Amino acid sequence: ADPTAGREKASACSTCHGIDGIAKIPIAPHIAGESEVYLQTQLKAFRSGKREHEIMSIIAKDLSDEDIADLSAWYASIEISVQMPDS
Amino acid sequence: ADPTAGREKASACSTCHGIDGIAKIPIAPHIAGESEVYLQTQLKAFRSGKREHEIMSIIAKDLSDEDIADLSAWYASIEISVQMPDS
Repeated sequence: ADPTAGREKASACSTCHGIDGIAKIPIAPHIAGESEVYLQTQLKAFRSGKREHEIMSIIAKDLSDEDIADLSAWYASIEISVQMPDS
Repeated sequence: ADPTAGREKASACSTCHGIDGIAKIPIAPHIAGESEVYLQTQLKAFRSGKREHEIMSIIAKDLSDEDIADLSAWYASIEISVQMPDS
């Protein structure tokens, strides 16, 4: 898996999820820093039809295993940090 | 929706997703900072069976609409920031 290749392949992803994995619309999740195994599992589930979404089911249909590995490597390579709300 | 109540209800969630929304195991996604609508949609999809996962399908089955709203409000209230990899 090649994160640099994944970044180059991520233009369709970035429309909703951002190239940095921070979603641009509320219905899309942030995917920055998710694990490769989680991202690959979800993309394969959308591709197979196990998981369904009006946009992702179409996007994932044309992805090869290598595309999925590269895209997952890219988004997994982004580091995230959190700030808890004041309580 | 009450994020403080959500935090108190999140002990089962936190086993895998962390109380701060940073996952403790690779198969679970980070959920910190996801939008309320995304989190609610996923929890309701697991509850209804539209989305399936061996753990989440069981966890979600017992959640009320109020639980889902509160839990989603909690995790949505955490701010995330990203650091892009050096290229």
